[in-house]
Amino acid sequence: MDLRPSVEVCFTPNLYPLHMDDAEIVVVIDVLRATTAICTAFHHGIDRVIPVSTLEEAIEYRNKDNYIVAAERKGKVVEGFQYGNSPFSYIDKDLKGKTLVITTTNGTKAFHTAKRAKQVVIGSLINLDALCEYLKEQHKKVLLLGSGWKNKFCLEDTICAGAIVDQLLSTGNFSSDHDSSIAAKYLYLSARENYFGYLKSSSHRRRLRDLNLNEDIKYCLRPNQTNVVPVRKGNYLIKI
Amino acid sequence: MDLRPSVEVCFTPNLYPLHMDDAEIVVVIDVLRATTAICTAFHHGIDRVIPVSTLEEAIEYRNKDNYIVAAERKGKVVEGFQYGNSPFSYIDKDLKGKTLVITTTNGTKAFHTAKRAKQVVIGSLINLDALCEYLKEQHKKVLLLGSGWKNKFCLEDTICAGAIVDQLLSTGNFSSDHDSSIAAKYLYLSARENYFGYLKSSSHRRRLRDLNLNEDIKYCLRPNQTNVVPVRKGNYLIKI
Repeated sequence: MDLRPSVEVCFTPNLYPLHMDDAEIVVVIDVLRATTAICTAFHHGIDRVIPVSTLEEAIEYRNKDNYIVAAERKGKVVEGFQYGNSPFSYIDKDLKGKTLVITTTNGTKAFHTAKRAKQVVIGSLINLDALCEYLKEQHKKVLLLGSGWKNKFCLEDTICAGAIVDQLLSTGNFSSDHDSSIAAKYLYLSARENYFGYLKSSSHRRRLRDLNLNEDIKYCLRPNQTNVVPVRKGNYLIKI
Repeated sequence: MDLRPSVEVCFTPNLYPLHMDDAEIVVVIDVLRATTAICTAFHHGIDRVIPVSTLEEAIEYRNKDNYIVAAERKGKVVEGFQYGNSPFSYIDKDLKGKTLVITTTNGTKAFHTAKRAKQVVIGSLINLDALCEYLKEQHKKVLLLGSGWKNKFCLEDTICAGAIVDQLLSTGNFSSDHDSSIAAKYLYLSARENYFGYLKSSSHRRRLRDLNLNEDIKYCLRPNQTNVVPVRKGNYLIKI
């Protein structure tokens, strides 16, 4: 029997019940763009992030001091909100001492799917290596949870999950049992030379390209731009 | 707007509700081993196949003339049954004029998942090219339904689906919209030189290897051994 902790991939939140026994630490991944935006906000000084599921919850924070409230649906900033999930919204802003409240189509839903998990951390390509170092130190069962697109499989989250699987397995200290993890790793290995080209037909890239968000995509697909690892503490996220 | 019929991939039966609008023809795939066994039985002369969900249904046919009854659970022939889902059970046997009743862990469940689809056909690697020719002629929306393993993603069904996606898209007469289809195609492209080696870590191959079924696996992974295309007609399958 293999006693090493496992690293497994759950493609979408609706599949979480099939995988949650493999979860001591859940890594929530929404490369395009929620978890990338959250890592960016931490990198640029935000104090805390509160992911919320609904617009109603987000609205409650709108007039509070020291809160920035972000809402995205269908790739766009929701009317009446200043911020969406573009990472560029969080660069060169005065974020110090502030809390970001954010609701998005897929990423914040995935975060709430994992609410009963013992530990939740935020993953993206931009914090890939720092995240993997953190996971190696923890040495616990890791479940990589893709946010998908309205519960459908999504390629960029899976590739990011595959990159993490690859790094953890290469230490020899983790095991992997499910075909979803093997597939994620294979997809990563065939994508890693050119993420942007690899994703050219992906539904999310087409969706964002139609919204003139190609620069966002390029930013989100550039690995290791930050060392932040956002972790859940109570109902919000902090940087460790 | 793209007016070509689509070819999409649904990884597992539990995801079918997300995809069923894309289904004019559903191709049920269980490479290891139900759909391979069904194609093999037709190739060797069986008249009809009745996939049933439960052992109870299978037992009802056990003492009828001209019926062969097969039952597999957890990779093994169920006690009290003569046949399971090894394709070798259906080679060099007197199958002419007979009906095969078969229940398996995953494949027959997938078949019943698609019961409301207008057309259902059986796919495997061993009838790959013949199946693709059939689908090209039909020129309808194709949904490739993997059987998975107890609703979890499975690599060999996805690779088979990816091979079909690749063939249909290469005609220029089909479109594809979902990332699951793109991923399946990518996985196929990286697997096609050596399916057996590619699947060496897959959970299903390990499961069958532990049951000394390596020869079954090799047979199931060898493309284009037959031209049969089993299609649903009423409650049973016939060869077209």
